[in-house]
Amino acid sequence: MSGSKGCCQRCLHYVFDYETAKTLVIPSIGVGFVFRFTQFLVVLYVVGYVCVMSKGYQDTDSVISTLTTKVKGLAFTNVSDMEPRFWDVADFVMPPQSDHSFFVLTNMVITPNQIQSHCPELPNPSTICKDDCDCTVGYADPRRNGIQTGLCENYSTTVRTCDVLSWCPLEIDTKLPERALLAAAENFTVLIKNSVTYPKFNVHKKNIFQHINSSYLKRCEFNRATDPDCPIFRLKNIATEAGEDFQDMAVKGGVLGIVIDWSCDLDLWSGPCNPKYTFRRLDNKNPVNNVAPGFNFRFAKYYKTPDGKETRTLIKAFGIRFDVIVHGTAGRFGIVPTIVNLGAALSFLSLVPIVADWFMLTCTRKSDIYSKHKVTYLSEDAENEPTVLQGTTYGTTD
Amino acid sequence: MSGSKGCCQRCLHYVFDYETAKTLVIPSIGVGFVFRFTQFLVVLYVVGYVCVMSKGYQDTDSVISTLTTKVKGLAFTNVSDMEPRFWDVADFVMPPQSDHSFFVLTNMVITPNQIQSHCPELPNPSTICKDDCDCTVGYADPRRNGIQTGLCENYSTTVRTCDVLSWCPLEIDTKLPERALLAAAENFTVLIKNSVTYPKFNVHKKNIFQHINSSYLKRCEFNRATDPDCPIFRLKNIATEAGEDFQDMAVKGGVLGIVIDWSCDLDLWSGPCNPKYTFRRLDNKNPVNNVAPGFNFRFAKYYKTPDGKETRTLIKAFGIRFDVIVHGTAGRFGIVPTIVNLGAALSFLSLVPIVADWFMLTCTRKSDIYSKHKVTYLSEDAENEPTVLQGTTYGTTD
Amino acid sequence: MSGSKGCCQRCLHYVFDYETAKTLVIPSIGVGFVFRFTQFLVVLYVVGYVCVMSKGYQDTDSVISTLTTKVKGLAFTNVSDMEPRFWDVADFVMPPQSDHSFFVLTNMVITPNQIQSHCPELPNPSTICKDDCDCTVGYADPRRNGIQTGLCENYSTTVRTCDVLSWCPLEIDTKLPERALLAAAENFTVLIKNSVTYPKFNVHKKNIFQHINSSYLKRCEFNRATDPDCPIFRLKNIATEAGEDFQDMAVKGGVLGIVIDWSCDLDLWSGPCNPKYTFRRLDNKNPVNNVAPGFNFRFAKYYKTPDGKETRTLIKAFGIRFDVIVHGTAGRFGIVPTIVNLGAALSFLSLVPIVADWFMLTCTRKSDIYSKHKVTYLSEDAENEPTVLQGTTYGTTD
Repeated sequence: MSGSKGCCQRCLHYVFDYETAKTLVIPSIGVGFVFRFTQFLVVLYVVGYVCVMSKGYQDTDSVISTLTTKVKGLAFTNVSDMEPRFWDVADFVMPPQSDHSFFVLTNMVITPNQIQSHCPELPNPSTICKDDCDCTVGYADPRRNGIQTGLCENYSTTVRTCDVLSWCPLEIDTKLPERALLAAAENFTVLIKNSVTYPKFNVHKKNIFQHINSSYLKRCEFNRATDPDCPIFRLKNIATEAGEDFQDMAVKGGVLGIVIDWSCDLDLWSGPCNPKYTFRRLDNKNPVNNVAPGFNFRFAKYYKTPDGKETRTLIKAFGIRFDVIVHGTAGRFGIVPTIVNLGAALSFLSLVPIVADWFMLTCTRKSDIYSKHKVTYLSEDAENEPTVLQGTTYGTTD
Repeated sequence: MSGSKGCCQRCLHYVFDYETAKTLVIPSIGVGFVFRFTQFLVVLYVVGYVCVMSKGYQDTDSVISTLTTKVKGLAFTNVSDMEPRFWDVADFVMPPQSDHSFFVLTNMVITPNQIQSHCPELPNPSTICKDDCDCTVGYADPRRNGIQTGLCENYSTTVRTCDVLSWCPLEIDTKLPERALLAAAENFTVLIKNSVTYPKFNVHKKNIFQHINSSYLKRCEFNRATDPDCPIFRLKNIATEAGEDFQDMAVKGGVLGIVIDWSCDLDLWSGPCNPKYTFRRLDNKNPVNNVAPGFNFRFAKYYKTPDGKETRTLIKAFGIRFDVIVHGTAGRFGIVPTIVNLGAALSFLSLVPIVADWFMLTCTRKSDIYSKHKVTYLSEDAENEPTVLQGTTYGTTD
Repeated sequence: MSGSKGCCQRCLHYVFDYETAKTLVIPSIGVGFVFRFTQFLVVLYVVGYVCVMSKGYQDTDSVISTLTTKVKGLAFTNVSDMEPRFWDVADFVMPPQSDHSFFVLTNMVITPNQIQSHCPELPNPSTICKDDCDCTVGYADPRRNGIQTGLCENYSTTVRTCDVLSWCPLEIDTKLPERALLAAAENFTVLIKNSVTYPKFNVHKKNIFQHINSSYLKRCEFNRATDPDCPIFRLKNIATEAGEDFQDMAVKGGVLGIVIDWSCDLDLWSGPCNPKYTFRRLDNKNPVNNVAPGFNFRFAKYYKTPDGKETRTLIKAFGIRFDVIVHGTAGRFGIVPTIVNLGAALSFLSLVPIVADWFMLTCTRKSDIYSKHKVTYLSEDAENEPTVLQGTTYGTTD
């Protein structure tokens, strides 16, 4: 019975006895200063860098974005090889709606009245022929315009080329107008309605703010200095801010990025969270390595002749695609990142005594005395009652 | 030789002597309890909050999604100013396919048989004129319909407006039907096939589960209670769950979000990972600040008359764009986040003795005794053999 | 005055006195080895795993991508129920441009010359009727083709079906060609121009490298072994690398993913950052659970007859949608993650003395002696001058 009582007490002792380190207080201003200064540096880093600058205490989330765009503008073309023509949004914006980008036609090569037929290829080292032997029936080079019929025909009075099955007449895309056909596109405007969500924080934001009313929206235009909140952008200004000349880009086409940065600090003590618009050219325009420059694609409008035959107008469309890139990370105070960052910083505080001990035992005048009192040296030889030597240390704590 | 042997031994001592802290055991239930309780709190936090609730031990990855959608439905319109007309998917879904959104036409203003011509502008304070002097040749207001020819023409018997080059007749978009033309769109259904990938974990998932067979897919319809796994959604239900009235939205258009949340816990001990569907209106419908409401765009169908002239049917399309937003973060046990989080938590354990020491030296009855045995005070004045004072402490360890 | 001076001195002592742990040096090779070995393991883990393998010292950012694609190819079809026809890019790529995917038409069911009219439904258990009573005026099954007029008409000489308002003649989509109509699509090529940005690091990259010139781009084709940098892909090879047969897929359509992985190590000491292309089938092709297989959609080309009536050619388009999925995470040395990871690792170093102490006090021969010198046991009973027992310990530090 006394045994079980003793065991219980022993157990209680084991759990609730508190073992604390024996310490030595050293009244040295020098050592104390080194200790406090190192401590101060660590705290400064934690507060200054991790908390204030890098916002290490924040939980983060990525933006989810919804976008609608609406282009407005009118243009009129009057060039020699085409009838005078008026263009509106339905003519030059394609596809008519899209979620994160829109394309504005600025230049084109139009090949009207194409029908399924056969005609001689455009002259080219690989298509010029002398007689039918030079042309292979069924041969189709994807970089040429059709499938060879095996005949060699007169392309002009001087040149003979292989005959191909194709939509005829063939497109001659070397005749690209040197000044963009729809040069007026630089004055088109686009309204961008963007709403974003940070799902983790359940925060919803819109780029049309509360204070914007219909009448302002009818006359405003984005200007970084005077109207930074207006969501209507003039295409020319987008190009200019991206460091490009709109008319230059309009000839061969390109891709411009409208970058909307919704990086937000959602903590209560932070200011409002507004989008920041920047503009950048996204496609390759390196003049040295200018391979496959610009942006163009082909599409066709299909018609039927009164007798039911299909004809089409092929358009090689050059223009500017505007990619609206919405990105951003929102941060808000979170317990877990705070704990992790604080914990990591606390670890560094545990380095401080090591630095101070090292300074105390090596750089001070009285290091011998300090060492003698701090460190007890246990002799290896002694068995029952070892000789305790004070004042000499070989080991280090870390 | 004995010197090199001594040096070697000294070196061995330096590396392998173990320096351990001298400790004092205090058999006080109070102090012991404070120590163990603080320890318990830290461990509770680590296990409870970081590990169980926040899953701090998990490595995370964002979802990559692929999507195909297929709308089904039929509609018939019979309104006064249009011929009776039947509509199927090829008529009201545009573009016919898209990757992360689809648009269903619900209302429209149709302006058929437009040709390149000139006609008087719609009456408006800025377009009404008295004579040709009020109209400027070549002036084009992007908010109006054409480019002024400089003439002032009779718009009606009472009003004269500036003549413009444009597609004529001009669109009169104020005549928007008050009840959506394709009101039947509320009963259209959409099949959403979504497959996702977590590249870091090489995990692939699909929203059409293994147990779904063709016959079920032919008759099922998503219902949060009875058919939560069916990937076929009735448009009206999407609007209703988003808190909107479909017919209201159908008149002026809008953007509805179909949010698919693939947040997954991929650890072995977790349950299956199923998508969660939620629906939300994404565009601005704030009734107070209702600028640029709804969603519409213009597109045209181009025709050729028998004599080769181009005509078009301009359609101002109002409708609902459904943006399918796939998001989610998968988590799976990872060594690095586990180590980082555990390490940060361990740091907090190093705070526990500080709390217990503080309690022991300030709040206990016998603090003087504890202090005397724990802390040795080294006198500053002594040079060779300093006076050691016990029982008084000024410094603190942290 | 002497009191204030004493207070000031006391304060100075409080701030600058340095309290250091008293330590005991144990010259035991065994204990020292355990201590150093544990230390070595922790450092090995930190350096080896966290730093070298997992790059825990890096700050990360997600990629923002811009993409243009251009398909090239020609095809010729000559099947029994259709006129011979030549196809080029404007015919089989739709929409003509899109930002992150492109669709290549490979097979189709064409229903030309549809007009708004009424005609008997296709025979089907739910549409076959005996007389008008079996048909409901206005009934529209979204899985059928039109809105019932309430009449029962002769579909053929043997079958009578309900008459429906619809675009007539109705599409018979069971007559899908068993060999893909545009089987030649396997030899089409696509040029992918991709530029990416890591906004946090302000790094821009392109998949067309500096050393690629126009003449190389005109003849090259992506090949993992010989031309890994060429951004031109043959559609057949994409399907093959994804483990699919192109001709099989072409019949019913599908979705192929072109995954571009831009995962980058942006540290100075790292190599160049090149995209890695992989290909994968993204839609469901599980042969067991093959519900809603393939990928198809319907679109129409609208025409006007000479007398102004609208007709359309309905096309049920089967084909392969290529989704270009650009993903990647860039890492670059960052102070905050380095600090956090190092800090967490340091915490583990603080565990090392606990392990060594435990070994010393339990597993060594002289543990009694070590314990007697390390631990001072304060008796609970003593009030003023407590009996200090050495050599017995119940508590533990951690």
